[in-house]
Amino acid sequence: MPDVIAIVGGSGALGGGLARRCARAGLEVVIGSRDRARAEQAAASLLADMPHASVRGTDNSAAAALGDIVVVTVPFANQASILDEIGPRLAGKLVVDTTVPLMPPKVGRVQLPPAGSAALAARERLGEEIALVTAFHNLSAEKLGAEGDPGCDILVFGDDKDARERLIDLTTRLGLRGLHGGPLANAVAAEAMTSVLIAINRRYKVPGGAGLRITGLG
Amino acid sequence: MPDVIAIVGGSGALGGGLARRCARAGLEVVIGSRDRARAEQAAASLLADMPHASVRGTDNSAAAALGDIVVVTVPFANQASILDEIGPRLAGKLVVDTTVPLMPPKVGRVQLPPAGSAALAARERLGEEIALVTAFHNLSAEKLGAEGDPGCDILVFGDDKDARERLIDLTTRLGLRGLHGGPLANAVAAEAMTSVLIAINRRYKVPGGAGLRITGLG
Repeated sequence: MPDVIAIVGGSGALGGGLARRCARAGLEVVIGSRDRARAEQAAASLLADMPHASVRGTDNSAAAALGDIVVVTVPFANQASILDEIGPRLAGKLVVDTTVPLMPPKVGRVQLPPAGSAALAARERLGEEIALVTAFHNLSAEKLGAEGDPGCDILVFGDDKDARERLIDLTTRLGLRGLHGGPLANAVAAEAMTSVLIAINRRYKVPGGAGLRITGLG
Repeated sequence: MPDVIAIVGGSGALGGGLARRCARAGLEVVIGSRDRARAEQAAASLLADMPHASVRGTDNSAAAALGDIVVVTVPFANQASILDEIGPRLAGKLVVDTTVPLMPPKVGRVQLPPAGSAALAARERLGEEIALVTAFHNLSAEKLGAEGDPGCDILVFGDDKDARERLIDLTTRLGLRGLHGGPLANAVAAEAMTSVLIAINRRYKVPGGAGLRITGLG
């Protein structure tokens, strides 16, 4: 049985791109949204393109309950409240936080939160018992949703190596290259790099968005 | 007249790689070290390989005084004391800090300093009047010293766009691709990424060291 992937905040751009890639790979996808109707609409839109995909929409909390892997794709401003909301549903699951601490309007400037990073904020919020990794900080929603290899890497952070490995296996199934980036404390590198990529996109007008590649791995 | 490049801490690995690349590009290089004899030895070693290069060695403070561009390549633990030492020599120069806040023995784990980053620590130390950029965080000493294009990017951070541009021009002369990474506040991304690259090197046993490439720029 393949894992069920729940995407909390899955009606947003990043979550939508991830849902599309997961559905295309034949995974069972549950899209969550604060507004259940929006989630159902997002699911219907994916099914219109991929009639044989397994996708449904529901509210965030129900989506979290249904997923084996629960990916959180919400704006930083909503991270704490959403994690509090879905927290009781997360026992035994792998949680994948994708939050980047962008502080509008200056999203091209690194502004780290008091916890040090969104990853450490998530850890504080969820407690030590829940398996937590963070990833998907540096890939644009557009590239995530598109077909094929985007040529960028997915840095995966987490204090538990097996949990990281499980997400890296998922990235492989999705046609992406996931890499062990080290402990949760290291996630700040990828989170901060998102603002750098935004600054680069603005300055160099990068079509499709700049990405990050680790060189030397062959 | 081409710029004189002073490399403070230039008898170390990163500084030595940079000195080699600068000398090969025909730039006038002054290697600085706390130990003047070590700097002279490093210069002699480069001259043995490149007899027509313009390289000399002296102490850090004298090197800083001679450079138009002063690159600081010292361990984080020495950053504050070295900047204090050379500070009086830096008026009117472009200072390029390359410091990464690695805290041995856990250098594969991001551990940011109280100032938030080595870049912001340098700014505090030097004051607002001195032109400061930071760069060369993510390129291994080996790749920096080698011939040709390492296939990695040099992210350049600084609050003054013209100062960044001046260093990017230098990277171009060195056969490297420098990119505007945004303000000094953004340097934390590249600094933290160094620990991630160290973690990746250890885990994946990357020959020659992992590097960072920004994709999408053509």
